[in-house]
Amino acid sequence: MSVVKSTLSEADLKTVGDALKGALVDLVDLGLVAKQVHWNVVGPRFRSVHLQLDEVVDTARQHSDMVAERASAIGVAPDGRAATVAAQSAIGSVPEGWIKDVDVVRTMIDALGAVIGRMRERIEVTDEPDPVSQDILIQLTADLEKHAWMFQAENA
Amino acid sequence: MSVVKSTLSEADLKTVGDALKGALVDLVDLGLVAKQVHWNVVGPRFRSVHLQLDEVVDTARQHSDMVAERASAIGVAPDGRAATVAAQSAIGSVPEGWIKDVDVVRTMIDALGAVIGRMRERIEVTDEPDPVSQDILIQLTADLEKHAWMFQAENA
Amino acid sequence: MSVVKSTLSEADLKTVGDALKGALVDLVDLGLVAKQVHWNVVGPRFRSVHLQLDEVVDTARQHSDMVAERASAIGVAPDGRAATVAAQSAIGSVPEGWIKDVDVVRTMIDALGAVIGRMRERIEVTDEPDPVSQDILIQLTADLEKHAWMFQAENA
Amino acid sequence: MSVVKSTLSEADLKTVGDALKGALVDLVDLGLVAKQVHWNVVGPRFRSVHLQLDEVVDTARQHSDMVAERASAIGVAPDGRAATVAAQSAIGSVPEGWIKDVDVVRTMIDALGAVIGRMRERIEVTDEPDPVSQDILIQLTADLEKHAWMFQAENA
Amino acid sequence: MSVVKSTLSEADLKTVGDALKGALVDLVDLGLVAKQVHWNVVGPRFRSVHLQLDEVVDTARQHSDMVAERASAIGVAPDGRAATVAAQSAIGSVPEGWIKDVDVVRTMIDALGAVIGRMRERIEVTDEPDPVSQDILIQLTADLEKHAWMFQAENA
Amino acid sequence: MSVVKSTLSEADLKTVGDALKGALVDLVDLGLVAKQVHWNVVGPRFRSVHLQLDEVVDTARQHSDMVAERASAIGVAPDGRAATVAAQSAIGSVPEGWIKDVDVVRTMIDALGAVIGRMRERIEVTDEPDPVSQDILIQLTADLEKHAWMFQAENA
Amino acid sequence: MSVVKSTLSEADLKTVGDALKGALVDLVDLGLVAKQVHWNVVGPRFRSVHLQLDEVVDTARQHSDMVAERASAIGVAPDGRAATVAAQSAIGSVPEGWIKDVDVVRTMIDALGAVIGRMRERIEVTDEPDPVSQDILIQLTADLEKHAWMFQAENA
Amino acid sequence: MSVVKSTLSEADLKTVGDALKGALVDLVDLGLVAKQVHWNVVGPRFRSVHLQLDEVVDTARQHSDMVAERASAIGVAPDGRAATVAAQSAIGSVPEGWIKDVDVVRTMIDALGAVIGRMRERIEVTDEPDPVSQDILIQLTADLEKHAWMFQAENA
Amino acid sequence: MSVVKSTLSEADLKTVGDALKGALVDLVDLGLVAKQVHWNVVGPRFRSVHLQLDEVVDTARQHSDMVAERASAIGVAPDGRAATVAAQSAIGSVPEGWIKDVDVVRTMIDALGAVIGRMRERIEVTDEPDPVSQDILIQLTADLEKHAWMFQAENA
Amino acid sequence: MSVVKSTLSEADLKTVGDALKGALVDLVDLGLVAKQVHWNVVGPRFRSVHLQLDEVVDTARQHSDMVAERASAIGVAPDGRAATVAAQSAIGSVPEGWIKDVDVVRTMIDALGAVIGRMRERIEVTDEPDPVSQDILIQLTADLEKHAWMFQAENA
Amino acid sequence: MSVVKSTLSEADLKTVGDALKGALVDLVDLGLVAKQVHWNVVGPRFRSVHLQLDEVVDTARQHSDMVAERASAIGVAPDGRAATVAAQSAIGSVPEGWIKDVDVVRTMIDALGAVIGRMRERIEVTDEPDPVSQDILIQLTADLEKHAWMFQAENA
Amino acid sequence: MSVVKSTLSEADLKTVGDALKGALVDLVDLGLVAKQVHWNVVGPRFRSVHLQLDEVVDTARQHSDMVAERASAIGVAPDGRAATVAAQSAIGSVPEGWIKDVDVVRTMIDALGAVIGRMRERIEVTDEPDPVSQDILIQLTADLEKHAWMFQAENA
Repeated sequence: MSVVKSTLSEADLKTVGDALKGALVDLVDLGLVAKQVHWNVVGPRFRSVHLQLDEVVDTARQHSDMVAERASAIGVAPDGRAATVAAQSAIGSVPEGWIKDVDVVRTMIDALGAVIGRMRERIEVTDEPDPVSQDILIQLTADLEKHAWMFQAENA
Repeated sequence: MSVVKSTLSEADLKTVGDALKGALVDLVDLGLVAKQVHWNVVGPRFRSVHLQLDEVVDTARQHSDMVAERASAIGVAPDGRAATVAAQSAIGSVPEGWIKDVDVVRTMIDALGAVIGRMRERIEVTDEPDPVSQDILIQLTADLEKHAWMFQAENA
Repeated sequence: MSVVKSTLSEADLKTVGDALKGALVDLVDLGLVAKQVHWNVVGPRFRSVHLQLDEVVDTARQHSDMVAERASAIGVAPDGRAATVAAQSAIGSVPEGWIKDVDVVRTMIDALGAVIGRMRERIEVTDEPDPVSQDILIQLTADLEKHAWMFQAENA
Repeated sequence: MSVVKSTLSEADLKTVGDALKGALVDLVDLGLVAKQVHWNVVGPRFRSVHLQLDEVVDTARQHSDMVAERASAIGVAPDGRAATVAAQSAIGSVPEGWIKDVDVVRTMIDALGAVIGRMRERIEVTDEPDPVSQDILIQLTADLEKHAWMFQAENA
Repeated sequence: MSVVKSTLSEADLKTVGDALKGALVDLVDLGLVAKQVHWNVVGPRFRSVHLQLDEVVDTARQHSDMVAERASAIGVAPDGRAATVAAQSAIGSVPEGWIKDVDVVRTMIDALGAVIGRMRERIEVTDEPDPVSQDILIQLTADLEKHAWMFQAENA
Repeated sequence: MSVVKSTLSEADLKTVGDALKGALVDLVDLGLVAKQVHWNVVGPRFRSVHLQLDEVVDTARQHSDMVAERASAIGVAPDGRAATVAAQSAIGSVPEGWIKDVDVVRTMIDALGAVIGRMRERIEVTDEPDPVSQDILIQLTADLEKHAWMFQAENA
Repeated sequence: MSVVKSTLSEADLKTVGDALKGALVDLVDLGLVAKQVHWNVVGPRFRSVHLQLDEVVDTARQHSDMVAERASAIGVAPDGRAATVAAQSAIGSVPEGWIKDVDVVRTMIDALGAVIGRMRERIEVTDEPDPVSQDILIQLTADLEKHAWMFQAENA
Repeated sequence: MSVVKSTLSEADLKTVGDALKGALVDLVDLGLVAKQVHWNVVGPRFRSVHLQLDEVVDTARQHSDMVAERASAIGVAPDGRAATVAAQSAIGSVPEGWIKDVDVVRTMIDALGAVIGRMRERIEVTDEPDPVSQDILIQLTADLEKHAWMFQAENA
Repeated sequence: MSVVKSTLSEADLKTVGDALKGALVDLVDLGLVAKQVHWNVVGPRFRSVHLQLDEVVDTARQHSDMVAERASAIGVAPDGRAATVAAQSAIGSVPEGWIKDVDVVRTMIDALGAVIGRMRERIEVTDEPDPVSQDILIQLTADLEKHAWMFQAENA
Repeated sequence: MSVVKSTLSEADLKTVGDALKGALVDLVDLGLVAKQVHWNVVGPRFRSVHLQLDEVVDTARQHSDMVAERASAIGVAPDGRAATVAAQSAIGSVPEGWIKDVDVVRTMIDALGAVIGRMRERIEVTDEPDPVSQDILIQLTADLEKHAWMFQAENA
Repeated sequence: MSVVKSTLSEADLKTVGDALKGALVDLVDLGLVAKQVHWNVVGPRFRSVHLQLDEVVDTARQHSDMVAERASAIGVAPDGRAATVAAQSAIGSVPEGWIKDVDVVRTMIDALGAVIGRMRERIEVTDEPDPVSQDILIQLTADLEKHAWMFQAENA
Repeated sequence: MSVVKSTLSEADLKTVGDALKGALVDLVDLGLVAKQVHWNVVGPRFRSVHLQLDEVVDTARQHSDMVAERASAIGVAPDGRAATVAAQSAIGSVPEGWIKDVDVVRTMIDALGAVIGRMRERIEVTDEPDPVSQDILIQLTADLEKHAWMFQAENA
């Protein structure tokens, strides 16, 4: 079933569609991971980290919606189901159960670092075929790098 | 690592903790599934269904946070990671790709029905051990059953 | 025409459906009665009573919507038509024309008392068959009893 | 008990008072009827019609308050009790139970048509005796005719 | 200095301009009188009357601005200076000093009655020459008559 | 295709429909013209005039929507397409390119004057056949005349 | 009729009461004068001055309410009636009719200057007897002097 | 003086009234204690703890109002005076003067624990006699246990 | 434990600290007393007095926070615990149980009078040592005296 | 008359100016077309499509203002007059009169498609000469393509 | 160029003008310093300190505007240029680059202490010549001392 | 002390870091300069220019925060201290004291022109090494060029 008549060539569509679908998976998982540690964090910095994580969740949810609808807009069906996310996310596994605040900070530095690395590649490959999709990836990367700085500053 | 000194006995804690952790998994998946079809729905009723699904997402996100933090509050570490959700959710698999609006309605009736069925059981088992947790489950079930009615009315 | 596949047994459905339908009629009439005296009240306490009555109207309208949609959610068609309300309401007839403020207060104490009495019975009969519907009835009764206290305090 | 010293002559007062009291009954019933089908509508257009009906309810409630308080302001006691509404409304009886979305649209076209017809007459008879009351009737008729157009457009 | 080229004939302009300038004086004074008794009222109904008077002030200020700018809009310079208001207002003198709540109510009934009487005449004389100005006078009279009803109801 | 069953006779419908369609064209063009000079104005009063023009745009857009939907409500299809507006507007041609602030003020006085003149005629012809449509035209004319006064005052 | 038992001695009460009553008269008149020229201003700076004057009106209305209620709070009945204001205001007479923008600016500099001069004296005389009333006079003088600066800057 | 005619039997009234009056005392003191340490906390976590405590204050104030008005609503006069609170509160004495952040956390864990323990008993004893009051106690206990978890997580 | 290095001399610190600590105790008790009668008031003026008391509560809570944090800011540990308040408040004991509206008004006049008397002394003694703290006391006294006027006006 | 000293070379200015002026014409027409069918749509999906079109209008109005002011900012006078729009728009003619909802959807797919095609070209040609203008075109194209997807999904 | 005719004598003007200009420089620099460390802070308390600093920035910006406009209001031209601030600020130099959270807290205690010391002197010297300016300095000092307490409490 | 592990190469980091640090200095100074003339402007256009300058201040403050935090996010410590700004800003010196409105407009055209020129260069050099930082520079340049147009239009 073809829904949207894309203005991109087939090759460009493949490149851009893969970038957006990959971004979607990473962002959905980032939101789930941030919520997981938001609920399980313990330690003297509990309150501060607990609140900070909900801002990551907001960023992840807003941008996952943005990239998913951008995929639809160029004619590529997005996939953000739990199984797909569990299988393809850039983020390594997060341990079960209570987690100390210092470990949360390290976990988030790693998770954000992994996602940002893949986003940087996506920005590069979409430059030629679709500057409109690229602009969306550029803006969300700015937000992710801001979060990454904050956790690193906290870790210094 | 023991964090919260529970006012429940060990046996009650096990019952209530399982109910809340199960509810968390179902609600996280309900949110992911509703977003998935929110992005992929096609057909003449696209706009109406697209908007309706975001209200399900809101309900699912709000209540998943509620039950996860309730689990923490009684001393049970919540688990809402993608892999856990993919493995334990009450909701059957949702097909990949574009999906017709009539199929979305049926998908949501099934998904909500499965989750509600398990919630009804959780309400029953938590009545004795912890009326505070039960009250939370009762209130979220009211919201889920309201959504379920609307999709069924739409299907009539 | 069957719309919603209820999770309740047929017997339970009858009990709970009757409770909700009865609550709907009483709440719609409470709203109409409160508006009627809101428009017709006279006397030195006019302004205070006039404003207080609109808060009763708000409560009545909010909760009548709640119970009507709860009825739909369990598969029972609600009935809030003028003729049904006129025939089945718990509230006795209210006189036509201007009404003194002290008489308004007494009218509202009687009206609220009659409705609360029936709500208390509905809370009891729905406990077993459907704690979700019962919870809704409990919460609206709290609001009605708060209004009833205020008119009684005013009458002391 | 005479409350408000009217600036209108007795004859004019009778004409205008009747117009406003009639308008009140029709508007209260319009609100009840719209809520009734708001709760009972089924069919593929459920969500759209369900939401649209609540806008009719808002219009009906706002304007019934307006005309009732206008009646009071010229010294005529308004009557919006359930029995009065059931007996005198311009709107024919609405069937009990679930109702298909297409039938809801037709029901609302008829209900609005009946009320508008009577409002047009009231605008005419109040022109001479009280342009202030007439202006209120003119403005609410504009709103009713806008709703009527929308349901007719939906029916085309 | 002629500012606005009026679309009205000279005779009509005189009629409408006088009506608007008269309305301005009455409304400015109504606002001053309502504030005066708002500050000086005493008695058991103090709080209720004190608040009610500020709603009259709001009405008076909003509508005095409206009629003054309407005068400007048709090319007639408005005059709302203290001396003009003191000399030409429809409202009789208000006593100095503290004033009992029952006397405030009577004072406001008289003040509103005097203003409404003159507004009714202005509605009549502006009908032919300028329906646009008349519409503004009709709408503000509706508000004034609503306030008048409330004070009379309070006095019953 | 007949959509709305009008309560007006065919002759009245023609009169009122023409008035509303004419008003629509004038108001759409007023909005376009105001935006055009909003973007092109230069001179020491740039900022003041630039902001003032956006208030005219707001008025024009709000009222054009109002009259278009009023046309639909009485069963007449509105026409606000660029070509229709270009052909039938009351407003004379506006020069291309940058325009001095003093010239903008004069342009707006002329544009508003032309539209107001035609609106006054429409108020007159709709009085008999449809007081509801007339009331809408009266209210928008009040707003237009207020804008016209302000530009004239600025030009004095 | 003695209403408030003042904590001030009789002599202090006289001093402070006179200061507050004088401030009330000046502020009420400032509000009336600012409105008068707000409606009658013409000239190229019309819009800017028209808006600026409404900010003076806001200041005058807010502070006149403040000082009147402060008078009541220390047991002195405030007097803000039109005749009192016309007789006792610090502000000289304002001409009738349209007034050029440059003249408005000068009028406001004079009016504000006259009021500020009297407020400075009131600050001095209330320092000893009642620092609470003095603080209110200090704060409103700050606002008046800010307005005075702006009109003078505009005049430079 | 009997104010409210209770729908509860005398025995039930005694049980429920005691539960609500006890809850009131505990909640008022919880608010006072949280404010006390909010003002006196020192240490590196000052800001985080200072803000967190104000959320406890909000919870305590909202729920103390709720239970006090519920007591009134069933006809039992509430008592939240300082002396009563000082004498009957569940919370042990809090030291005077500056208090280290770690000690604040421990103080709050103890205070919340003591109050929650007594609330759990109140939930049990009110179940039979008055499910409406019980529901209020259940909901506030959920909030208190959430706060207790957060301080414990911070202490881990 | 010395926390804040005060800019005041030791003697001044003692004077100002005592004034602020005394103000804190009085304001906390004022809030508790106002809530107590807010819950227990009965009589025809119930609603008006009930609402008015919550405005006193707001004032008391806002200002108690202000003076407590001011004490901290100059290096003095504030004390607002129930026992301290019960022992040191300026306000005499308030009777238990339901209380007639007229008695509430008298109770509040006495309570506010006692607190204002002590505040006036605190304003005097802090003038020399700390004008910053004095300014806070001046502003809250203005609010208290406004409340006191209103209850006295109501009692006249 | 040269207003803005552009930082672009003359050649670049021509390229970028043409792109922005073209974009302006297309966006103004998109807004007019969307309003036209918003008023004239009929059919079962009336309400959904009617609302959806107003979101297109919002997008078109916001972005037309953006590109017009961007043209001014680089020194090129924008032209959004009705005649210019009628002559140069990318959008083909839209039929007069009522239009079925399915035809509206197709009309919008065509209109958006035509505008998007030209925007894609403008993004390309502005890349070199002015990345600032290009960024604005990229962002508005993302919004247009999102609308285009939604109408296509609705058409599937 | 003399702009504002001051009500102060020349000598008083010099004293007050110097106080306000000095306050302006200190407050502008406080805002710049707080932003500088807001951006450069690192360490486990990063988030808490980062947020706290933005509240200092808000205070500094609001009050610098207040004192600058107060200077203008008494006829003294304010000077808040970077070079002036760099040369005359009370605050010692802040190191370049990343800064540990504990060092930020100490930096802010020193910066606030230096500014408060100079503000205390300004309060003293302005008391006689201009209580209006003094009141502004008193109020901003209260805010600065509140911030100073918080950083000291955090340092305890 | 290395805080953020940058994803950029060392050479790219140097280029981008310099661009962002330069942008920070220019934007901080733009804000200070705009405030300086906002306080010192005199002349007939005082109010219009005074308000317009605060919009420049908003833009400057928002974007300076953005570029400073972007510098931190890529691992470069930002420097916005008064001395740095005074030494390195693109904006030439602004005269002390009152400044005529026409001179303010010219001052702002020059200041904005200087900053925009340097921003254009920064956009160019960051294109290759970091499109994320470049996007931020592009967006703020759009805002600066919009302000520059407005002052130039005002100067025409």
